[in-house]
Amino acid sequence: MKWENIDSQVCSVARALAIVGERWTLLIIRDAFKGTRRFDEFYRNLGVTRHRLAERLSGLVEAGVMTRVPYCDRPVRYEYRLTRMGLGLYPVLMTLGNWGDVWLDKGQGPPTEYWHAGCGKVSKPVLSCSECGESLRPEEVSARPGPIMQAYIQSLVQERATMPSEAALPADAAEFALSQDSFQHEKKS
Amino acid sequence: MKWENIDSQVCSVARALAIVGERWTLLIIRDAFKGTRRFDEFYRNLGVTRHRLAERLSGLVEAGVMTRVPYCDRPVRYEYRLTRMGLGLYPVLMTLGNWGDVWLDKGQGPPTEYWHAGCGKVSKPVLSCSECGESLRPEEVSARPGPIMQAYIQSLVQERATMPSEAALPADAAEFALSQDSFQHEKKS
Repeated sequence: MKWENIDSQVCSVARALAIVGERWTLLIIRDAFKGTRRFDEFYRNLGVTRHRLAERLSGLVEAGVMTRVPYCDRPVRYEYRLTRMGLGLYPVLMTLGNWGDVWLDKGQGPPTEYWHAGCGKVSKPVLSCSECGESLRPEEVSARPGPIMQAYIQSLVQERATMPSEAALPADAAEFALSQDSFQHEKKS
Repeated sequence: MKWENIDSQVCSVARALAIVGERWTLLIIRDAFKGTRRFDEFYRNLGVTRHRLAERLSGLVEAGVMTRVPYCDRPVRYEYRLTRMGLGLYPVLMTLGNWGDVWLDKGQGPPTEYWHAGCGKVSKPVLSCSECGESLRPEEVSARPGPIMQAYIQSLVQERATMPSEAALPADAAEFALSQDSFQHEKKS
């Protein structure tokens, strides 16, 4: 499989990385969260080439993560803002940053601290369960196939085909998911 | 700045991405969380080239995210396991996957559901405040310079130098942080 087709995997991590998994992309989004909006500002802060930056920004616009908004009439110039979809990446950046704080601070402490207005304290991001609020630890969480994966596994059972390993499932199910494009998941909630 | 030097930025997101921000790396780690350990299994599941896979795995070992453990004597063969540092990436994968579930499910529902043994329910990961337990929303969180950044800003004030924007700080402070390699942060807690 080529990287360009990675979003065909039936896996939300792979699909997410097809959009934000390239060099520079998450740094562009980091700067957008800090208020950067204009091409030249991104360029100055990041030091990426103009060509690469333009490519990344238009990819993000195409994917719906950012939107281009005109800020000047003559000549027309655009700035880039995070959409709701883009704002949804906040937990990804915070958990990445927290991992860097814990493991890569070079003994100099965290470069940035986060103050939570809700409680008035310097805060660290913790991953919690949406249902009980307790922190989520990998050893207490088990993965189960969602609706489309269940349908795929069912199809394998019917064909008496070999069952792939859990790690092989996302790529294995790609063709099946494509053939089920009309499969509409009824949300239970 | 070249991508290869991105970890010189005084920013935990940039430092984290210097290790896991390449194509394929987070997918390798995803598979490791699902129990994949051997080179050929990673190769089969991912479809990345052998050369690229070997490069990524040795980068992860070098960074301390994975460790190579012999599982066969003659010939000596190794498997790859997540270290504690690697296990620390769990929140990053879960938040990436959750973003994919919300925005990229193609109407087919989440490919994977997560069952939380702690409460016995299908769970979604939520980012919470370490101090009050409430969910962390970007509009309620403000970034403050940590110890090394405070020292850098102080040095700018003393030199009566121009203050960079918040987004420009991480790259601007790189040289200063390097010169302060002996700077040891005293943890307050």
